[in-house]
Amino acid sequence: MIDFLNAYKRYDPAAKSRWEIALLYPGPKAVALHRLAHALYKMDLFFLARLVAEVSRFLTGIEIHPGARLGRRLVIDHGMGVVIGETAEVGDDCIIFHGTTLGGVRFEATKRHPTVGHRVLIGAGAKILGPITLGDGCRIGANVVVMRDVAPGEKITLESAAHVKT
Amino acid sequence: MIDFLNAYKRYDPAAKSRWEIALLYPGPKAVALHRLAHALYKMDLFFLARLVAEVSRFLTGIEIHPGARLGRRLVIDHGMGVVIGETAEVGDDCIIFHGTTLGGVRFEATKRHPTVGHRVLIGAGAKILGPITLGDGCRIGANVVVMRDVAPGEKITLESAAHVKT
Amino acid sequence: MIDFLNAYKRYDPAAKSRWEIALLYPGPKAVALHRLAHALYKMDLFFLARLVAEVSRFLTGIEIHPGARLGRRLVIDHGMGVVIGETAEVGDDCIIFHGTTLGGVRFEATKRHPTVGHRVLIGAGAKILGPITLGDGCRIGANVVVMRDVAPGEKITLESAAHVKT
Repeated sequence: MIDFLNAYKRYDPAAKSRWEIALLYPGPKAVALHRLAHALYKMDLFFLARLVAEVSRFLTGIEIHPGARLGRRLVIDHGMGVVIGETAEVGDDCIIFHGTTLGGVRFEATKRHPTVGHRVLIGAGAKILGPITLGDGCRIGANVVVMRDVAPGEKITLESAAHVKT
Repeated sequence: MIDFLNAYKRYDPAAKSRWEIALLYPGPKAVALHRLAHALYKMDLFFLARLVAEVSRFLTGIEIHPGARLGRRLVIDHGMGVVIGETAEVGDDCIIFHGTTLGGVRFEATKRHPTVGHRVLIGAGAKILGPITLGDGCRIGANVVVMRDVAPGEKITLESAAHVKT
Repeated sequence: MIDFLNAYKRYDPAAKSRWEIALLYPGPKAVALHRLAHALYKMDLFFLARLVAEVSRFLTGIEIHPGARLGRRLVIDHGMGVVIGETAEVGDDCIIFHGTTLGGVRFEATKRHPTVGHRVLIGAGAKILGPITLGDGCRIGANVVVMRDVAPGEKITLESAAHVKT
């Protein structure tokens, strides 16, 4: 747990203390409540699991389906509008910003959400869609839409040149 | 009402039961409260109508102006950050994802928000702006910005080739 | 205060009265609570300042770090998902729409968020990142990502031609 709060402290210069992070930040609350929801989900208590997830969404603005599998020391920063789907998997030491979606593009009950590696950074507003894989250490820029596999270490950004007109 | 919940169940493989959808999903709550807000709005009870809309926004993260006209079996999935403007119109059997805006680009009190046809799908984070028309059955991809009419059946996506650099 | 509410009334044709704006709109609440949080922050009461900011985020969906400096008559419209960082500065008479981020791209405790001039309009979902400057009177379109300085009066939009395929 200390380990987890340190992950926030290490990268957020605006955080003044661990108390502030543990008590006031939405990200740690959402991840802690997801651990509970996921345990209920694995016991086939789907309604109860979803209830916990909806309470968490109401308190934090972060929506994580109880079925999602999240790695260690996941930092969800700011978090409002984050949506993580039922069959999504996220590795260790990732940083996910607000407005990010790990979502699906098909309506069948198979693996339909992304698999995210370790040490991945996903910028604000990015949409990662479909049963694709984001390789270890890749970085996805703000507002980017990704619908294909991303190689380890790759960086993807909205090319600013493509949308500038004066 | 059953009809309405079936629309969710049909397309969301993560939904385990109709009870879960009716009691825990934000979309059906937002649409139900909007029906009330819209009725008050048509009786010129603007303050009360807006109050209902703000309570709905607080509970669901979905902001629908009381003046908006919404069709049957509208599915608003996840919903956080959805904004639908006063003069927007939405047809039947549409699916709208979280972060979508049906908004305006001018500050005059005329028809200034989009008209959306039937069976339209609008992806997460898309911004549909101005008094434009989205034709029946068209599909708007995640994070796309649309400021022109879209033909029936047309598909628009953020061209991934345009924003990839390694 | 009247001055401030007039700024909303002037540009929002959906607003029926100043009472509606003062009591029901999230933007004025978020800005008022930020004035309090910022005063606490300047007295080095960081935990208390952050507590006020988190209460405001819970009530309004708008997250403004207590350290941010905001100009007069700032209109934050709809507001859900707005994130404004600790070292961000915003001039007078700006309009910021929902989903906007004034954020950072580095993890050091220096000036790392944008400086926004006067009379700037920032569209829904836009991400303004890094210690850059947006010149007076510039306009940033919906979902645009800006990571460079923007000249006074400049307009930037997501080039619709770049992402249309039929």
